[in-house]
Amino acid sequence: MKRISSGSVTSPKGFRSGAATCGLKEKGAMDVALILSDYDCSGAGVFTRNEVVAAPVIVDRQTLADDPTKLRGVVANAGIANACTGPKGLEACKRMQELAAGCAGCAPDQMLVLSTGVIGVQLDLDKIAVGIEHACRHLSENNGKDTARAIMTTDTRPKHTAVSVDLPGGKVTIGGIAKGSGMIHPNMATMLAVLTTDAAVAAEELDGMLRSAVDRSFHRITIDGDTSTNDTVLILANGASGVELNDDALKTAFQEALDSICIELAQAIVRDGEGASKFIALQVCGARTQDEALSVARTIATSPLVKTAFAGGDPNWGRIVAAAGRANVSLNAESLALWIGSNINDDFQLVEDGIPLEYDESLAEAIFKGSEINIRLDLGLGQAGTTVWTCDLTHEYVSINADYRT
Amino acid sequence: MKRISSGSVTSPKGFRSGAATCGLKEKGAMDVALILSDYDCSGAGVFTRNEVVAAPVIVDRQTLADDPTKLRGVVANAGIANACTGPKGLEACKRMQELAAGCAGCAPDQMLVLSTGVIGVQLDLDKIAVGIEHACRHLSENNGKDTARAIMTTDTRPKHTAVSVDLPGGKVTIGGIAKGSGMIHPNMATMLAVLTTDAAVAAEELDGMLRSAVDRSFHRITIDGDTSTNDTVLILANGASGVELNDDALKTAFQEALDSICIELAQAIVRDGEGASKFIALQVCGARTQDEALSVARTIATSPLVKTAFAGGDPNWGRIVAAAGRANVSLNAESLALWIGSNINDDFQLVEDGIPLEYDESLAEAIFKGSEINIRLDLGLGQAGTTVWTCDLTHEYVSINADYRT
Repeated sequence: MKRISSGSVTSPKGFRSGAATCGLKEKGAMDVALILSDYDCSGAGVFTRNEVVAAPVIVDRQTLADDPTKLRGVVANAGIANACTGPKGLEACKRMQELAAGCAGCAPDQMLVLSTGVIGVQLDLDKIAVGIEHACRHLSENNGKDTARAIMTTDTRPKHTAVSVDLPGGKVTIGGIAKGSGMIHPNMATMLAVLTTDAAVAAEELDGMLRSAVDRSFHRITIDGDTSTNDTVLILANGASGVELNDDALKTAFQEALDSICIELAQAIVRDGEGASKFIALQVCGARTQDEALSVARTIATSPLVKTAFAGGDPNWGRIVAAAGRANVSLNAESLALWIGSNINDDFQLVEDGIPLEYDESLAEAIFKGSEINIRLDLGLGQAGTTVWTCDLTHEYVSINADYRT
Repeated sequence: MKRISSGSVTSPKGFRSGAATCGLKEKGAMDVALILSDYDCSGAGVFTRNEVVAAPVIVDRQTLADDPTKLRGVVANAGIANACTGPKGLEACKRMQELAAGCAGCAPDQMLVLSTGVIGVQLDLDKIAVGIEHACRHLSENNGKDTARAIMTTDTRPKHTAVSVDLPGGKVTIGGIAKGSGMIHPNMATMLAVLTTDAAVAAEELDGMLRSAVDRSFHRITIDGDTSTNDTVLILANGASGVELNDDALKTAFQEALDSICIELAQAIVRDGEGASKFIALQVCGARTQDEALSVARTIATSPLVKTAFAGGDPNWGRIVAAAGRANVSLNAESLALWIGSNINDDFQLVEDGIPLEYDESLAEAIFKGSEINIRLDLGLGQAGTTVWTCDLTHEYVSINADYRT
């Protein structure tokens, strides 16, 4: 697997993209993106589990259910989420499909749609039409970074990556862009990601592979515990590499590359979390089941007290243990053990059998003052474990969300 | 029912209390409290549901299980939680019982114990002994406010109240003190409360009444979603009024007074929430069941995005609806309706059928800029409903918890 420098959704063969400014965001920032494949694609999507879903989630679910084998691209806007907009919002979303299809020279139901931004505001279709037309006129293989930029909201930097894998039948490339820095929680967050590949993969298989990759990446991050109405991860596979994933070894290699792309984008979202100053990898091991490990990990990772302790550089392990205790998982307080470190291979133990060891407080503080913190909590109950990634809760998070209308 | 000015745990007949400084808190603040009844009491307690519990929770559960009919008082300390302290912490807690019993001239298992403060630190028993001795020497009926002050941690003010009820058999008084401003969430939080009454109530009945009152009060508040290791609400009934609750009308009147005391103390905790600048009453109605209403209400009330919108005075209702959608309750987005107001009788509608009405944004902003906000979300699914109370998430919350070691 080889990482492609400045890679993105246009790194795989046969994909082009464009970005434009149409006035949905303030200050003339780019807010419309178009990603097109020169060939029909198989496609798959994973969507928010929020009961209140945005129009594009409704439309994309239907589009993929109707025919996931002839997709041509994705049109996206930032600034307005097109959520809580009723029948009028649904119409606007379908109009976005039509406008993008007009550009691509395909049918509307070959296009997928993404929106992110303020909830409860109707899209200005005149503006969107101008934006899509502009993006369409400037389609290129070199616009990946701008495309990633056009889907940003409170993100401070574009998130894009690509890897190539040399397979027996030839080279396959997977690229991706993502956005999201608030309303980020495992059941898909206010996050959007578009993945592309030039591998030939049947739609059904692609769906399974995407779900598996998302489960190991985007479903393992949390910034603020809020799950958005719009969260979507899409993948398009156009087969332009001529490489078919027709045996298990190929599939495994592809899955590995896909996982890697998704983990990189998911971690990039956490690193750019609203107000985040620290990146925290939280490993829970010694659980009875993976679900229990995940429940404990997520409870700790969403605890305001734990996250403010990270922000303050305070190795306040008591809050970590207290949060673990309220995860609705039966625990044995006397079997808990806790390690911290600046990286996963260099940690030291604070707690054994549920009570603190006599450790060097200044060393613990030095680790918590750093920008990368690894936490390992052993529940001492079994063999299952998992890792989630999160960030700290800072003054800046409050400023961003007290002042910004999402 | 009559509210007693400056009322507290010593307002009911036959209760005295004392407070002292023993050096567990910084800056010489009071940190030991003793509450004694001149007569044996029936008692009941409601404890944290956290899987990791502090030593006093273990001890009090056992004490009440062994014999809830001959209690004499409560000894409490602040500054150190005596949680995650293992067998040594359990011994220290039992020693607190003994020291307090020595003062009261009763057996150790007639005393209940409370601790709150930093997790994972052992109690200094020498200091505690000095504190208990001092508190014992200064027992009085006029120390209620100081007693409330001695159990504070990050609280900014003492919380105490009392009411009297004229019943056919005579006057009955109920008093209470409480503390808590962080790690506050419905399954009992880093909150302690002690209630006293001079009514004669059998222990089993008292237990049921306490559970019912707690369910309507302390279990309906949330500050930061974190449930602590120490949360405890205790009640002692010494019968000194000579009034026995021997018929249903008396029981109903007493329950009403008890509910009122608990709601007042619970709301006082929210109003004094860490960094809180606003008090929010959140009513969820039109739910299929009360459990579903509560689930939706709690999810909204713990959403960092909702709480920062309150802090910013931003009527960002989209975040409220989005939070409702991730409460693991099946919703119909098209049946949602939302009202806001400065008080419960003066609200106006923002959302109908899941989409925004054309409302006066400046009026909505004026309400959200205020210090009391009422939110009413109608799910449009049934007849059940509930109300929870919470506060906003401010810069001050982050400062307190990034810097303070709980």
